[in-house]
Amino acid sequence: MFAPVYLDWNASAPLHPVVREAMLPWLGTRFGNASSRHEYGRQARAAIDEARARVAAAVGAHATEVVFTSGGSEANNLFVKGAAACMKPGTITISAIEHPCVREPARQLRTTGWRLRELAVDADGRIDELDWCACLEDKPSLVSVMLANNETGVLQDVAAMAADARRIGAWFHSDAVQALGKIPVDFRGLGVHGLTVSAHKIGGPIGAGALVVDKRVELAPLIAGGGQERGLRSGTENVAAIIGFGVACELAVKTLAEESARLMLLRDQVERAVATGGARVFSAAARRLPNTVFFSVDGIDGETLVAKLDRAGYACASGSACSSANPEPSRTLLAMGVDPTVARNAVRVSLGRETTQEDVSGFATVFGELVAGLKNLTAVRV
Amino acid sequence: MFAPVYLDWNASAPLHPVVREAMLPWLGTRFGNASSRHEYGRQARAAIDEARARVAAAVGAHATEVVFTSGGSEANNLFVKGAAACMKPGTITISAIEHPCVREPARQLRTTGWRLRELAVDADGRIDELDWCACLEDKPSLVSVMLANNETGVLQDVAAMAADARRIGAWFHSDAVQALGKIPVDFRGLGVHGLTVSAHKIGGPIGAGALVVDKRVELAPLIAGGGQERGLRSGTENVAAIIGFGVACELAVKTLAEESARLMLLRDQVERAVATGGARVFSAAARRLPNTVFFSVDGIDGETLVAKLDRAGYACASGSACSSANPEPSRTLLAMGVDPTVARNAVRVSLGRETTQEDVSGFATVFGELVAGLKNLTAVRV
Repeated sequence: MFAPVYLDWNASAPLHPVVREAMLPWLGTRFGNASSRHEYGRQARAAIDEARARVAAAVGAHATEVVFTSGGSEANNLFVKGAAACMKPGTITISAIEHPCVREPARQLRTTGWRLRELAVDADGRIDELDWCACLEDKPSLVSVMLANNETGVLQDVAAMAADARRIGAWFHSDAVQALGKIPVDFRGLGVHGLTVSAHKIGGPIGAGALVVDKRVELAPLIAGGGQERGLRSGTENVAAIIGFGVACELAVKTLAEESARLMLLRDQVERAVATGGARVFSAAARRLPNTVFFSVDGIDGETLVAKLDRAGYACASGSACSSANPEPSRTLLAMGVDPTVARNAVRVSLGRETTQEDVSGFATVFGELVAGLKNLTAVRV
Repeated sequence: MFAPVYLDWNASAPLHPVVREAMLPWLGTRFGNASSRHEYGRQARAAIDEARARVAAAVGAHATEVVFTSGGSEANNLFVKGAAACMKPGTITISAIEHPCVREPARQLRTTGWRLRELAVDADGRIDELDWCACLEDKPSLVSVMLANNETGVLQDVAAMAADARRIGAWFHSDAVQALGKIPVDFRGLGVHGLTVSAHKIGGPIGAGALVVDKRVELAPLIAGGGQERGLRSGTENVAAIIGFGVACELAVKTLAEESARLMLLRDQVERAVATGGARVFSAAARRLPNTVFFSVDGIDGETLVAKLDRAGYACASGSACSSANPEPSRTLLAMGVDPTVARNAVRVSLGRETTQEDVSGFATVFGELVAGLKNLTAVRV
């Protein structure tokens, strides 16, 4: 099987071998429905309780604040729609660079009388402070601003914004899917009312995520029924995935300091390599995740470059994976005021646990060759 | 590890070993996000397409009609809320014995101006035909009636009801979670607009289900975002679980005729054994699933009997697993007019693929002994 070097960790991280081992019994002899009142059910329930404590510990929350979902998209939808359903229609403020799974539910709210306000970002992708002050004047009922952007990796000062939001009585939510495992994430320290995390971005399985949520926030469930997760998320608990999530959280936190330092060095090498090839690195001046490089090379289409890199043995992303079925240029870049032509050339390299020095050196060489070749081709055509 | 004989297949079926094998590569080297445009992403996308075709084939639908979800609860909520969100508020009719994951979203609709009408059942748990005629007079916009009940196993004549509903222009949905793999399920033949199925009840993994849905039904997504599943269900596809669901569907359909005949013989033995112990078998006169026995023994509390059976090596259910955290008597039995005292004594035995003659004989012996012991105890106390 052809196995390119994987440089798309922000889209999904390979399952950590230790996580896999922890999950396997739950795909084998331990198959009970956690709601069942017999030996199999009790085993599953106890394992879920343990996983809940692990996820809570990883984000500095209490276990009772963790609501397991099928993933980050569901958790974001649960906060946005679930909180709105319990309030009078008002204003929801989100940043202009939110993931579609925050933006789309916020747009859906407009059909029920809500007003949606998008918060501007500057040329580096940081929240525009003046616009944030203006938004506060609007007295939003709900605010959602991501901790780290999936494309640029830019970090926002969520703690300060959450404090501002609290002063005006708004519920503040943050999508921390890309932040978890890459920078410290502290629910209590951030002072947010809701926080979304996901397993498969940190070496856990696809199929588990969580909304960590302040108990004062009243939420209507998206998925109502059997009453699991304190009635906030019904449906048979995905025991194996939840257990994997718990173990992945523990591992991610344990290795965070060392791994982020290691990845930052490799990330800097990638940046030097792409800059040498004539690339512009987006958000280079902003505080960013240690593993992410988002860049474009003038005159070279991002999709084309990604396809060539893939065939040459390096799996990268053009735009974010979740929206990559969509040929539109990155909304994040457009919000940063990047020209659509430049935005269409964007490529994302994101590193992770298994990325080695050799991978990065190899990428640098191949990237240089491909870009030189494509530029010659362009020159010949012109 | 203490491993009781598993007689709770309606709550969750153990993962089929063939399904497990098919899933493992996707929890290993094949880890891509299906939306990614590189080798890993393409592999995942192709595997999902194949699984979609398998699930569609198992229920006589077209692959493009299958919307993957995280499970049956989500699929039921998606139909009920998703269809209602695209209509003017009207009447939703559901049977009085629907699973909570149909009943609860239907109740939630009342906050947005909908009227909820519950359809009565007779003493055997079959839809009351006169009440159905009365419901049709009400001109419901949405109807949801399950194909097979999770507790009694009673089958409803969904095809006839769906035809009636079509005549008045209502969208008709059926929860077929308990039917799939136990009786033939044919989306086209039933003539329904929506059909819910789930992987973990048929030997697939927890974490995958589907709403099979007529494309004429307009649906608002519960989980909006990246646009996966034709925009009807966003979120990174749970590749491993979806692949497992596809394989489980294929296996379930292949072995259905033989397995259902085998299970019916074992089921009849269980019924004779519990009747000998003085039990009343619910819905004995109705057309039912071949694997399910729901019964009660006068004067013996269901929870107590289930706990004793578990310790004696037989894992059964009292009420349905999803609501078993709830000490209320079975709503299905109350709807059938069963006295609450009798309903509290209810125990469900449900058989599956791995159930053997030896298991059933052993259960019969242990059941007889336990019931005799409990009756003596009661006699002494009185």
